[in-house]
Amino acid sequence: MLGYYFGFIRSRNVDAFSQQNLHSLITEATPLAQSLTSKRRPHIAIGRGSNGLTYVGFDVELPDLPLNFSIHAVQFLVVSLKLNFDLALRDLAISNDGSHCYAPCGHCCQFLQEINKGNEIQTLITEPTGSGFMPLEMLLPQSFSRYSAISDDVPDVFHRRYPLTFIDRSHDLIGLTAMTAARNSYAPYSNAPSGVVLYDRQGHKFSGSYIESVAAFPSLGPLQAVLVNFVIDTGGREFKNIVVAVLVETRSRFRQEDTARMIMQKIAPGCKFNVYHCSHYRAESS
Amino acid sequence: MLGYYFGFIRSRNVDAFSQQNLHSLITEATPLAQSLTSKRRPHIAIGRGSNGLTYVGFDVELPDLPLNFSIHAVQFLVVSLKLNFDLALRDLAISNDGSHCYAPCGHCCQFLQEINKGNEIQTLITEPTGSGFMPLEMLLPQSFSRYSAISDDVPDVFHRRYPLTFIDRSHDLIGLTAMTAARNSYAPYSNAPSGVVLYDRQGHKFSGSYIESVAAFPSLGPLQAVLVNFVIDTGGREFKNIVVAVLVETRSRFRQEDTARMIMQKIAPGCKFNVYHCSHYRAESS
Ligand SMILES: [Zn+2]
Ligand SMILES: [Zn+2]
Repeated sequence: MLGYYFGFIRSRNVDAFSQQNLHSLITEATPLAQSLTSKRRPHIAIGRGSNGLTYVGFDVELPDLPLNFSIHAVQFLVVSLKLNFDLALRDLAISNDGSHCYAPCGHCCQFLQEINKGNEIQTLITEPTGSGFMPLEMLLPQSFSRYSAISDDVPDVFHRRYPLTFIDRSHDLIGLTAMTAARNSYAPYSNAPSGVVLYDRQGHKFSGSYIESVAAFPSLGPLQAVLVNFVIDTGGREFKNIVVAVLVETRSRFRQEDTARMIMQKIAPGCKFNVYHCSHYRAESS
Repeated sequence: MLGYYFGFIRSRNVDAFSQQNLHSLITEATPLAQSLTSKRRPHIAIGRGSNGLTYVGFDVELPDLPLNFSIHAVQFLVVSLKLNFDLALRDLAISNDGSHCYAPCGHCCQFLQEINKGNEIQTLITEPTGSGFMPLEMLLPQSFSRYSAISDDVPDVFHRRYPLTFIDRSHDLIGLTAMTAARNSYAPYSNAPSGVVLYDRQGHKFSGSYIESVAAFPSLGPLQAVLVNFVIDTGGREFKNIVVAVLVETRSRFRQEDTARMIMQKIAPGCKFNVYHCSHYRAESS
């Protein structure tokens, strides 16, 4: 159902990202989002990418884990754009009631700073006094990234790639796929890229890449990212169907391993969990 | 050393929370913060509470764990106010170079929304074009809390208390202390309060309470909170000195147990870890 929904959204080339069609997109996404969470009114984020395609994201809570393992609708949206090799987010609308649209939370405003020209992302705000699009810059005017190293000529969350190589030679095919996910991750602050691949009982494969934030805390772990892919591709089928998880990461002091393993134990007990280590590739001097 | 430093800050009743004395407070705190982190330039937050006392906070990274287990300087500051039973945060300054002061990151702007009248917190911003105090409302103008249940007559992060009672009767004295920490936590969204108590080899005791954010992700777990207390009281002595950890929490679907246990295994291998469960106290009808 979700696959269909995603296809449906994609098939519309929403030239005018207007309040009217946003309203209908959010209304359509609402029952789907509700079916995937215990929240009565999950947030739904609709975003338009660089190629005119439109994406949807919504809150995902992980059962039996603290609230701060949740995935916010805006983070879901960014992962979704990345999975589709989109290279920019242009417009954004967030709602939890299908009509009233508001700013991303501060956490997500911060997360969006990792996008080049993120401050120019147009966000629909509806207010009693009137509605309209506001650039992200007006929602987080003193944004942290202005004082960081991010600039337009640095590869952003959609462009960054890491040349990585395995340390241990005993990896398998799944390890190779997880390596591809790690290469697609975005970790400019820790320089510790990572990726995760999951397999379900039916042999379907899902992959996700770590996305870092300059503010550290809003970083989205590779396991959260791959769960977004799982939700997109399966329509939110039970996490318990996941039987294999493979993590590829560097041997840095910011390890994902224990966190990822703990989350998997919670959401898919009995899932096999493997880790491969990689390092940054350096061309050998001859 | 840190205890001294904290005492030192407290002994100054900084009536005029001016750019000049903030500058000197930040400069004094800098070497201390640097000694506690691998970051070259950790953020330092100076805040003034309701009683004129001035507090300090700085970034704490947890070794061998993903970046989003970090504690931000502003979160450290709020925990510090809570530990001192202060009831409000009035003014704020953040810097990582002792001179330039800037806005909290979006994540922390969001976290501060849990304080009543948080939007009125005055934050020092220095810019090439001039410096001055700006209310938090100007830093996160479309703040998420405006659409949430937070209002001034609801107990905020500094006022909330939970009547809790043990489920299992076999708790010990440490359990009772952890229960007090849980009662002091702030969990209006999950209704799942929790607290942690730590003991080090010397028999010193530290306690910390969970602090929740309406935006879920910026929530600060009870273990992060107690580590702030540990850093304050010991001057950042090694976490490896912690030998006992006790968590008290409700049996909700948002459990802290596995996360707290995993963090302790990382930062203090061999530490004993106990969990007691509590429930919300309801007066029996007679
Ligand atoms: Zn958010
Ligand atoms: Zn922050």
